[in-house]
Amino acid sequence: MRLIADNLQITNLEFRQAVIERNQTPIRACVQRCVKAGAEAIDINAGPLTKEPEKRMAFLVKTVQTVTTLTLYLDTTNTAALKAGLAACKNSVVINGISLEPEKLEKILPLAQEYDTDVIGYLLYPNGQVPKTAEDRLTVAAELFSKITRTGLEPQRLIIDPIVPPLIWEDGAEQAIEVLETIRTLPDLLGFPVRTIAGLSNLTTGRGPKEKKLLVERAYLPMLAASGLSEILLNIFHGETVRLARTCKFLRASKIFAWEIIP
Amino acid sequence: MRLIADNLQITNLEFRQAVIERNQTPIRACVQRCVKAGAEAIDINAGPLTKEPEKRMAFLVKTVQTVTTLTLYLDTTNTAALKAGLAACKNSVVINGISLEPEKLEKILPLAQEYDTDVIGYLLYPNGQVPKTAEDRLTVAAELFSKITRTGLEPQRLIIDPIVPPLIWEDGAEQAIEVLETIRTLPDLLGFPVRTIAGLSNLTTGRGPKEKKLLVERAYLPMLAASGLSEILLNIFHGETVRLARTCKFLRASKIFAWEIIP
Repeated sequence: MRLIADNLQITNLEFRQAVIERNQTPIRACVQRCVKAGAEAIDINAGPLTKEPEKRMAFLVKTVQTVTTLTLYLDTTNTAALKAGLAACKNSVVINGISLEPEKLEKILPLAQEYDTDVIGYLLYPNGQVPKTAEDRLTVAAELFSKITRTGLEPQRLIIDPIVPPLIWEDGAEQAIEVLETIRTLPDLLGFPVRTIAGLSNLTTGRGPKEKKLLVERAYLPMLAASGLSEILLNIFHGETVRLARTCKFLRASKIFAWEIIP
Repeated sequence: MRLIADNLQITNLEFRQAVIERNQTPIRACVQRCVKAGAEAIDINAGPLTKEPEKRMAFLVKTVQTVTTLTLYLDTTNTAALKAGLAACKNSVVINGISLEPEKLEKILPLAQEYDTDVIGYLLYPNGQVPKTAEDRLTVAAELFSKITRTGLEPQRLIIDPIVPPLIWEDGAEQAIEVLETIRTLPDLLGFPVRTIAGLSNLTTGRGPKEKKLLVERAYLPMLAASGLSEILLNIFHGETVRLARTCKFLRASKIFAWEIIP
């Protein structure tokens, strides 16, 4: 299970300001701290980037690359920005992401082929709504898979995000369990060991006491790991959660156990 | 997921001494603390009870019952002691436990019928060895189930323990994952929602740093919960683990989420 830091988010005022002023310092500091905390990849969440999309995305990518060679996940809904980011990438890169939404299939999916990258596929309906049950999610996955293979992109390029629901949704807790079944069933449905990814903080979106949010995330994380999740997007500064994630990794992957491998 | 305190163990010198001297105080104090910490049942681990088996077990049961009406799990390999414990029980009671080992089938299983109790069935071979894979465990489960139903005991009386392996076993980490699959598959195999139980501390049996042991247990516990485990035997004084267990319960069982239900 790969740990991807979700800490670099343009919604953070400090980073937004840094991008506007082309100030590398806070961005570099954040990424260095992510690497130190155990990040195995960096998500660059650039948002919609309505102003100067190409320049700002290229600046972000170049800045991050000054301090790490880790894989970058380019997380923007702006096609022009995404293209500029891909062009600026020297590190290996993942497009985050597409779905059955027509605009994403038409504009973003071709970029995965053009730049020969992995691509995250969100299990959303064409109208952007989230499927409720595991069965609904798997139906969407099959359709997304067929769209992707029809374009000629290798199936192995796909990383599926089943959409972790906020618990505050009316059926959030039920959907969280459906997500586990989705992850477990996908490789069998698609006929190959398809990779999966989940955004842990989605679970606790909205208002709520911080300690309880962390507790709920720590309860759900090993459930995701046990279901076979390949990659997890999380706040890499949550030390206890990261220790738990690394322990889950060892539990799932270790042939021979020794206390030394536990963080 | 029911939380069963495993804190009352006769291997603890203080309790052994108390039993010999028929001193109720330390036992009552322990059980009261268990109840306060959130125990939903109490396991009385009396060991083999080679001396005064009937008197000592009856003393234990009666002492525990002076401070709680929670369900008691009678955990001894001594048939005479078990019988005396069952006779002394006013609280509801579970026999812990039987397996395919001939002596247990012959001597302990009939007591479940005689006293009309639930009974834990360990997935062990007749020679007491632990099956390695999920498939092996399921084969043993089917055989145990058939032995039990042939005696006329209601299948719903059975609680299956798939045997959590110590991680220090050569294939401990692998077996831990096989246990998850066993738990998930059992209801389908046996054709009814068979209950399952696991002893969490088994995972970290042996020498090892305490903090890492707790971390590994906290990683494995939600995996067990996600697999559908019905009952967990654990040290109820491990506050953080108990909070996590209760959170797992809510995640699995809650229809409507609210932060207030998270401990």
